[in-house]
Amino acid sequence: MDLRTEIPRRDIERLHTKALEFSSAARSLVLSIITAGFEVKRKPDNSFVTSADLRVEEHLRGLIQLHFPDHGVIGEEYPATNPQAAYQWIMDPIDGTEDFVQHLPTFGSILALHYRGEPLVGVIDHPLLDMRVHAAFGLGAYYNGRHLKLTDIDASAIDGSERLMLPARANFIKHRDDGHLFDALNRAHPNHRIFRSCFSHVCAVIGAADAAVDYGNPVWDFAASRILIEEAGGKFIVVRAWDAPGFGRVYGSVFGKPLLVDRLKTLFD
Amino acid sequence: MDLRTEIPRRDIERLHTKALEFSSAARSLVLSIITAGFEVKRKPDNSFVTSADLRVEEHLRGLIQLHFPDHGVIGEEYPATNPQAAYQWIMDPIDGTEDFVQHLPTFGSILALHYRGEPLVGVIDHPLLDMRVHAAFGLGAYYNGRHLKLTDIDASAIDGSERLMLPARANFIKHRDDGHLFDALNRAHPNHRIFRSCFSHVCAVIGAADAAVDYGNPVWDFAASRILIEEAGGKFIVVRAWDAPGFGRVYGSVFGKPLLVDRLKTLFD
Repeated sequence: MDLRTEIPRRDIERLHTKALEFSSAARSLVLSIITAGFEVKRKPDNSFVTSADLRVEEHLRGLIQLHFPDHGVIGEEYPATNPQAAYQWIMDPIDGTEDFVQHLPTFGSILALHYRGEPLVGVIDHPLLDMRVHAAFGLGAYYNGRHLKLTDIDASAIDGSERLMLPARANFIKHRDDGHLFDALNRAHPNHRIFRSCFSHVCAVIGAADAAVDYGNPVWDFAASRILIEEAGGKFIVVRAWDAPGFGRVYGSVFGKPLLVDRLKTLFD
Repeated sequence: MDLRTEIPRRDIERLHTKALEFSSAARSLVLSIITAGFEVKRKPDNSFVTSADLRVEEHLRGLIQLHFPDHGVIGEEYPATNPQAAYQWIMDPIDGTEDFVQHLPTFGSILALHYRGEPLVGVIDHPLLDMRVHAAFGLGAYYNGRHLKLTDIDASAIDGSERLMLPARANFIKHRDDGHLFDALNRAHPNHRIFRSCFSHVCAVIGAADAAVDYGNPVWDFAASRILIEEAGGKFIVVRAWDAPGFGRVYGSVFGKPLLVDRLKTLFD
């Protein structure tokens, strides 16, 4: 039984509305930080972190603490709080920090709410592109307010021209060498794009890509993507999950138009 | 001797100014077409063409005919005119048509002026991203009016974290199977992005990427890129050129920060 069905619809509506408020607050803060300038540092794993990542996560955590003090929070930049709570907010305040540092508009803010391990609400916002997708369990998926309804891809259209969003090879080799999976994916689907951030997830959600693959990433990188794609009428499958030494749990997932997702899954079997 | 040095500076300034006027006119038209809606068709090679591609190229050809009736024009959608002229305008009215069709903002308009085969002026404009780069021989390169000056990459920074813009595998296999080059590139430089349009060229020009590779494309796809990158202080090398049966001449090129460009070139030797 899907535990999410025990939550009253009005509660889901309220949580969805709050998530959108939080996302709007994060966007305002990101835009003001871009205008004012920000500091860039390297984390121990050599990835970038900026004062923007830290400030946006602090701000979101403060809002959640204010409105939902008994909910848990899992974020990229700070330790988890209330880890036993049924409701868990999961966030990546700036996904695609490397692009953000380079002043490319493809970075985004990810915010999700999970209930007993199942996604209830998801939001991905691209402040500089003015693109936001959001969804909640049973309420549908939306792109800048417009209702989303994906049409499945026709089997005959999976002929090499299908549009696939891939992670870079870097994602397949950073925690262990799964480079052969990158090779298999790009050979089977040569019309790929690699945006290196949640922008590729958004492309799958709005149907601008037929599917997306995420790989070697922790939960906050795709925490919003399952509810977004499922409420849009697509399919989401976790194809890998393992504990990366010295890093934590990472995942591989495939999501988008159902027929292509099933086809992609076979490359991971 | 560089034949471009025989052109008076004031002439180059005037041609540069005109190219920017033409580019602005193209942007206005693109934005109005997006608002009004456009038709999508497939070309014989199965690539997309829209009424926007055709109308923007027609408009640019009209402006060039009006101001420079004795100049030649080479464009993606219509036959070349004045092929013997010393001055040749080369354009791709909408590069990244597939992304344009999907309402992704990464498409762009490319406009270049070559003199006796050498690039004199180059403009790449992204109407929806409000990003425009332009350059003219001896006048420097600019990004939304700001002067560009690339700093070369340090040899120690070419450690796998260098940021490389790649074409998709599709580009390496569409005219002949050079998939091994794609494999060599993504293995040597795993922190790659694949934007599938001139947006990747712009990233190299502004330094948001350390270098870019273009492959299997006709002249209008990279006609602006050499003058842009060279005037920004980078390096441009054509690494392949061949006649693709039933299609025409296509090229491979590598451009960006000089040290990385030299390193990339070795993968094509």
